[in-house]
Amino acid sequence: MAILQIHAQLQADCHDLGRIASCQVLLHTNPGVPWYIVVPETAALELHELTLRERLEVDRITDSLARFIKHHHRSQRINVAAIGNRVPQLHIHVVGRSPGDPCWPDVVWGNLPPAAARCMSELRAIQTALDGALADESERCDHS
Amino acid sequence: MAILQIHAQLQADCHDLGRIASCQVLLHTNPGVPWYIVVPETAALELHELTLRERLEVDRITDSLARFIKHHHRSQRINVAAIGNRVPQLHIHVVGRSPGDPCWPDVVWGNLPPAAARCMSELRAIQTALDGALADESERCDHS
Repeated sequence: MAILQIHAQLQADCHDLGRIASCQVLLHTNPGVPWYIVVPETAALELHELTLRERLEVDRITDSLARFIKHHHRSQRINVAAIGNRVPQLHIHVVGRSPGDPCWPDVVWGNLPPAAARCMSELRAIQTALDGALADESERCDHS
Repeated sequence: MAILQIHAQLQADCHDLGRIASCQVLLHTNPGVPWYIVVPETAALELHELTLRERLEVDRITDSLARFIKHHHRSQRINVAAIGNRVPQLHIHVVGRSPGDPCWPDVVWGNLPPAAARCMSELRAIQTALDGALADESERCDHS
């Protein structure tokens, strides 16, 4: 399996939650909102440059994360975005948003107030819940 | 063909560029950046709630717009985002961004300075170029 090089800024901002198919899944260290980031293993810099196969895989993973965020974090809306104005490497934000969160209804980019990182036990709980949710989805796909 | 009701805020903020498949294509009236918006005809509020067929169509249209923006507006990056914190109707932003544009490298949401709307001749030129680009893409698909 090829080793995906994650941009230094993403590494500095995020926890690494592991790999799903050919994508690395990150979680922003700011616990104010559930802010996941999917980094596909590709040299493409834009969504429209992905092959159909890569695009379908990215859609499947961002959709899985969206369902997880709705269920686990009880978020009301999901913001999904590929921006890349500061970090050129293609990465897709999947962010749970709800009225009353620290920057609702503004977007998180440039508006989320700094906050102390989440504690290790909370991070472990998220990792365990995410692994379980993705395993459940995978099992449903296998049986459908 | 069903009539797609566009949210009043989107109607107020955008020019209507017409329909592609089951989506309405809008152009933000602020000419500071090329800011297109795709509104799929669906009751779904989130990307992950679309059927696979709807999702593929949305991907195809946003990809076509991204290629058009790169070619016609010479934008360096494409920002693609479904947000919906203020307007609940599902809509996907496809925005051309370049160093030196009015809010680079910040995101457009909440950061694009107000500006006078583009003149009718510029709008007509964009409409003509977009119609031509989409017709070319459609022809290529038919022949492939």
